[in-house]
Amino acid sequence: MALCGGVGAARMLSGFVRVLPGQDLTAIVNVGDDMELHGLHISPDLDTVTYTLAGMDNQETGWGVARETWAVMDELARLHGEDWFRLGDRDLATHLYRTGRLRAGATLSAVTSELCERRGIDVRLSPVTDDELRTRVTLAQASALGPAGLEVGFQDYFVRLQHGVAVRGVRFEGAESARPAPGVLTSLAAAGRIVVCPSNPVVSIGPLLAVPGVLKALTARREDVIAVSPIVAGAALKGPADRLLRELGTEASVVGVARLYAPWVGTLVVDDADAGLSEDVEAEGVRCVVTGTVMTSPERAANLARVVLDA
Amino acid sequence: MALCGGVGAARMLSGFVRVLPGQDLTAIVNVGDDMELHGLHISPDLDTVTYTLAGMDNQETGWGVARETWAVMDELARLHGEDWFRLGDRDLATHLYRTGRLRAGATLSAVTSELCERRGIDVRLSPVTDDELRTRVTLAQASALGPAGLEVGFQDYFVRLQHGVAVRGVRFEGAESARPAPGVLTSLAAAGRIVVCPSNPVVSIGPLLAVPGVLKALTARREDVIAVSPIVAGAALKGPADRLLRELGTEASVVGVARLYAPWVGTLVVDDADAGLSEDVEAEGVRCVVTGTVMTSPERAANLARVVLDA
Repeated sequence: MALCGGVGAARMLSGFVRVLPGQDLTAIVNVGDDMELHGLHISPDLDTVTYTLAGMDNQETGWGVARETWAVMDELARLHGEDWFRLGDRDLATHLYRTGRLRAGATLSAVTSELCERRGIDVRLSPVTDDELRTRVTLAQASALGPAGLEVGFQDYFVRLQHGVAVRGVRFEGAESARPAPGVLTSLAAAGRIVVCPSNPVVSIGPLLAVPGVLKALTARREDVIAVSPIVAGAALKGPADRLLRELGTEASVVGVARLYAPWVGTLVVDDADAGLSEDVEAEGVRCVVTGTVMTSPERAANLARVVLDA
Repeated sequence: MALCGGVGAARMLSGFVRVLPGQDLTAIVNVGDDMELHGLHISPDLDTVTYTLAGMDNQETGWGVARETWAVMDELARLHGEDWFRLGDRDLATHLYRTGRLRAGATLSAVTSELCERRGIDVRLSPVTDDELRTRVTLAQASALGPAGLEVGFQDYFVRLQHGVAVRGVRFEGAESARPAPGVLTSLAAAGRIVVCPSNPVVSIGPLLAVPGVLKALTARREDVIAVSPIVAGAALKGPADRLLRELGTEASVVGVARLYAPWVGTLVVDDADAGLSEDVEAEGVRCVVTGTVMTSPERAANLARVVLDA
């Protein structure tokens, strides 16, 4: 099974699907990025993973749907509506479907299963929780949204401010009372191997750990937990993981990731570029595996998947 | 000022705009047809009037927007989502805008003013109430939705069942506690003339009368209230007004309309086709004016507007 954020996780899962066709694969996905906008429930990480596995992801943007159209957003812009979070027409259908089902009383995990089935996806995707869990970010600097010290929603930070503002703190609103979605804890207990995808440790994996019971279940399986570092040569391949780590007091390197994950991760897979740091990783009490981790093609994703499975 | 449902009212208002350019015109619009779908707040009558006055109405369908595209609905159909209520892409932008603003705490009347301003509409449109008011229909026959006696939402009856099922009763849920939107009662008191557009008496005008204070305000202005009959030669030009009148015990004729409206309408404008019934209308205590009421062109709408203003 796999613990997932968005783009990096989606690529990693594509690799697993190629290497393990037809096999049972469960993926637990972050929902801290979820938001309500225009009254619609948007689940960016679930959708990124779903679109990627359905082969309909937009590889240019890294988000949204390929061959997307923008009729609704264009009209919304004419109305001077909130159009900072770009929702394509095909993408909107997902949000309409999800929101309608949630309003009718379905759980997010039930809706996720329905969407996977409709999209022809074999991987069993589940949100980490069906309850509301929202990542909130306290900004360390003044921004277009307000003075330093302001707490904003994750997408305000990530999209609206294009993660260009330093962060002082992150919290996961609702996490204390969130219950793991059905099957999450039993999957964590039963899985042969638990793969932590190369996702942002702070805001993608962090929310998963914040759901009561998850960290404990992972710690109990530590020897079978294998993480792929999202930090390569001191930098995030995409997004603000490196800056967030530094801003919140962790070294932005594979060693920093190893230190952060050590209580519950037995093995860390690092990129060839970080081969020289493998002893430092192991000094954190984490076994280190070195390979190519940059998934610039499906083949490279499949190669990484093979290494992770053999590790 | 005008009391409005959807299509018939929209045409009537277009006529007034041509005849009275630049003059203050207030239109109070039915919200009993409103619904939540996919988490979005949809106000069909407000939108029909807005689109028509903005010159962007779809004259072929009688609803929605001209030069519409259907990317979201097409994708939603692929997901086996609820697509019985067709929402075009441009139309959806309106619903996203409205829902986002309502969720942010704006009133429906405030949002309506914003949308009118963005669409360049001079007429002051207002929902009859900012509170929730929903027309519910009790079916007299078994239907695809269930057995005879089932109460359904208005759009279930109107769109889903294509108003093809006999009706036993209509009620306006929430009406008792609905407050008139800001300005509604003062407009009714101050208007030089109050025009009841040729809208469905039961399900378009009925909800307006059900809001506490409105009927009393109209009754006080009875001599200045002039209605245009939506029934021509015993039939509705569009929609189920004739059947609804009959099913609920009123004659589907200009005489039936006169009888229904007599307590608060001083003058009824009927079509030339019903000239022979003008004495019967007046026998109901309502002054009768005969003219061409079928607005098949903007010119005919303007002619009707002139007659109504001169009456």
